[in-house]
Amino acid sequence: MAAAASSLLAGAGSSSCAAISTRRTRVNRAVASLPSPSRTPCTPLRVSPARPLRNRVVASAAPAVQPPAASRVSTVVDVDLGDRSYPIYIGAGLLNEPDLLQRHVHGKRVLVVTNTTVAPLYLEKVTWALTHDNPNVSVESVILPDGEKYKDMDTLMKVFDKAIQSRLDRRCTFVALGGGVIGDMCGFAAAAFLRGVNFIQIPTTLMAQVDSSVGGKTGINHPLGKNLIGAFYQPQCVLIDTDTLNTLPDRELASGIAEVVKYGLIRDAPFFEWQEKNMTLLLAREPSALAYAIKRSCENKAEVVAQDEKESGLRATLNLGHTFGHAIETGSGYGAWFHGEAVAAGTVMAADMSHRLGWIDESIKKRVIDILEKAKLPIAPPGAMTVEKFKSIMAVDKKVADGLLRLILLKGPLGSCVFTGDYDSNALDETLRAFCDS
Amino acid sequence: MAAAASSLLAGAGSSSCAAISTRRTRVNRAVASLPSPSRTPCTPLRVSPARPLRNRVVASAAPAVQPPAASRVSTVVDVDLGDRSYPIYIGAGLLNEPDLLQRHVHGKRVLVVTNTTVAPLYLEKVTWALTHDNPNVSVESVILPDGEKYKDMDTLMKVFDKAIQSRLDRRCTFVALGGGVIGDMCGFAAAAFLRGVNFIQIPTTLMAQVDSSVGGKTGINHPLGKNLIGAFYQPQCVLIDTDTLNTLPDRELASGIAEVVKYGLIRDAPFFEWQEKNMTLLLAREPSALAYAIKRSCENKAEVVAQDEKESGLRATLNLGHTFGHAIETGSGYGAWFHGEAVAAGTVMAADMSHRLGWIDESIKKRVIDILEKAKLPIAPPGAMTVEKFKSIMAVDKKVADGLLRLILLKGPLGSCVFTGDYDSNALDETLRAFCDS
Repeated sequence: MAAAASSLLAGAGSSSCAAISTRRTRVNRAVASLPSPSRTPCTPLRVSPARPLRNRVVASAAPAVQPPAASRVSTVVDVDLGDRSYPIYIGAGLLNEPDLLQRHVHGKRVLVVTNTTVAPLYLEKVTWALTHDNPNVSVESVILPDGEKYKDMDTLMKVFDKAIQSRLDRRCTFVALGGGVIGDMCGFAAAAFLRGVNFIQIPTTLMAQVDSSVGGKTGINHPLGKNLIGAFYQPQCVLIDTDTLNTLPDRELASGIAEVVKYGLIRDAPFFEWQEKNMTLLLAREPSALAYAIKRSCENKAEVVAQDEKESGLRATLNLGHTFGHAIETGSGYGAWFHGEAVAAGTVMAADMSHRLGWIDESIKKRVIDILEKAKLPIAPPGAMTVEKFKSIMAVDKKVADGLLRLILLKGPLGSCVFTGDYDSNALDETLRAFCDS
Repeated sequence: MAAAASSLLAGAGSSSCAAISTRRTRVNRAVASLPSPSRTPCTPLRVSPARPLRNRVVASAAPAVQPPAASRVSTVVDVDLGDRSYPIYIGAGLLNEPDLLQRHVHGKRVLVVTNTTVAPLYLEKVTWALTHDNPNVSVESVILPDGEKYKDMDTLMKVFDKAIQSRLDRRCTFVALGGGVIGDMCGFAAAAFLRGVNFIQIPTTLMAQVDSSVGGKTGINHPLGKNLIGAFYQPQCVLIDTDTLNTLPDRELASGIAEVVKYGLIRDAPFFEWQEKNMTLLLAREPSALAYAIKRSCENKAEVVAQDEKESGLRATLNLGHTFGHAIETGSGYGAWFHGEAVAAGTVMAADMSHRLGWIDESIKKRVIDILEKAKLPIAPPGAMTVEKFKSIMAVDKKVADGLLRLILLKGPLGSCVFTGDYDSNALDETLRAFCDS
């Protein structure tokens, strides 16, 4: 699988635009097996040998671990944030490489934050990877209930309780093992525990791998709105073992694809076109297709985050479909819909509104609907959502500024969007009425 | 009172060492009325006219406010933290100067966080200062119960609830009006609400004015330890209206003096000597003595914070007596003792341990006890504190690193200290046994 996964990466690497912040890419053998994405000609992706993984930076006095003879790290995408920069490792079987994880552990104590679904699958493996040939490190874990509806203050307190009862100190490391909910909660806990400790992201869902684990947004929900309490807090590294997708339910896989589609729509038309051609392979979990989609998504996200870490403008474009989507999640009860499902319906609504404003052709709106339908994602909100419900929830969205709701809308050719509060609000009303029964 | 308050500032300004980070000081009339602090000769404090207060930086379209003909700002101490730098305004009657506050408000919405004790005294005045000639700004407030025992997650959630129910957005400003508990909670709420909004500190207790409002440490307590959950988050400004001390109970005034004494002990021997001479005036609330003590404390804190914002080393020295003190606060139930009372007893314990280690002369230990006794502060922990209680609580102190408890201890001549885990633990045991019945 590792070799297969690398084949399309190689194809993409030699023919696609370079991500500004992608500084290292290791390509194994280049065996073309999938249609390579059609991209407009531009600067080729820089391909260089990966940095040797010999430099262990751990505080313990554990004996040095020799790297495996042949590292299976397929790709490293760097998130370029000055002294808060970090690597995203992407590849199959990365959890079998203890050194990769251990070099980013600070201190002797680790707290793995995971949930009841992921713990039976990967907690033992991660604990092994953290402690293999590294006897000075001890690992604690806290297993939270699974689901968006538990992304709240009460559940967050369980992380603090465990950390304090375990007498963890400032030189400890929190590890988020799970999907977006775990990553967001563990990250916020790491940001706030003793006013900030190190943390590592090990995302195990496609949603977390392509989006939520990258960029440092952390937080929890409030009964009145999603992600209203949190912090910008960057991890030490993101470790994406694509093998973990083997255990992901279909519905969750599709949820992640909603964010993959997003990158194409807001800034990467060739990636969108590649998805249109390869959606069947993605849904069939073809390893190299998934690996390419993850890599290209992380590159897109890393580029945006490097330019606008704290979302003063550009970064907000990553929220295409999210204002409508968050309203659906909040309005229908956290957890009823997966985040990506709500984002998919929200993306269709954003495309619909963009079209009503005359900002995109009907053909683009149609392609949005088609690709999301093909990914088996919802293209309209649930029946329970009313116009009033949308409006009252969107009024507390984080993108409201001085009372004005700013939205990410498509504008211009495929792959172009705007973040603006300067739109005809009738178009918003019309879209809401078109998608709601009342 | 303003003139009186400025007189000693002038005296100090012309004869004392300059704080590195004190870039602006406005002195009214220089009328020497108090013994000026004896300082070793060094670079005089730079005295220059205050910056004109004409530049209102508010987002609203409110008509410009003319500054008062004669501003009563006595002193501005700058906290130099690059793009997070901010001024500390110190003076009598500053809440009567709307412009001073308004220039630091971002957006049109303000949330004042205060408590049941302070609200009846100053909420109306602060609301007036925020809105006077500034009709575009609207002010909400949340009034929390008063006391350290409410510095918890449940109370913090009330701030989020109010902010969300009021539909505050990212361009709002939180204002902390009260003592250290309010400042810590409001600051952490501002750090976490929508992942960070602007905030302003208006400290109304001596403790908050000389210490907790400056430097960006925010947070809440956990049942197992003090300030274990929080963030480093800097305010837009700190506004210290020394008139607010007129309503402060004696016991709270003394509590603040414990931190003033701390600055002298850890880094400013001339200030300690000045306190020894002027303690009676401080307790009698002589305005110029208080104003000088506040200014010199803020200068000391600003210098330390500018060098080590996130407490990688030097900043920890500001916690002299605090490890013992936090244990007393946690062990005897938050709120039983005021923070400064616990710090006072903790400072005596730190001095005792330093003396047992042979690091300071007995005379220094005696001067520590004498000055704290003179300030009517406790010089020993409450009877309920046992050796075991101290040890188990101190084990989760934030200054523990990889299992080693680091302490701030006095070492060398007056005004010198170390932050270290390299001490004979027998001395710690002996100190604990000497101060505990069991």
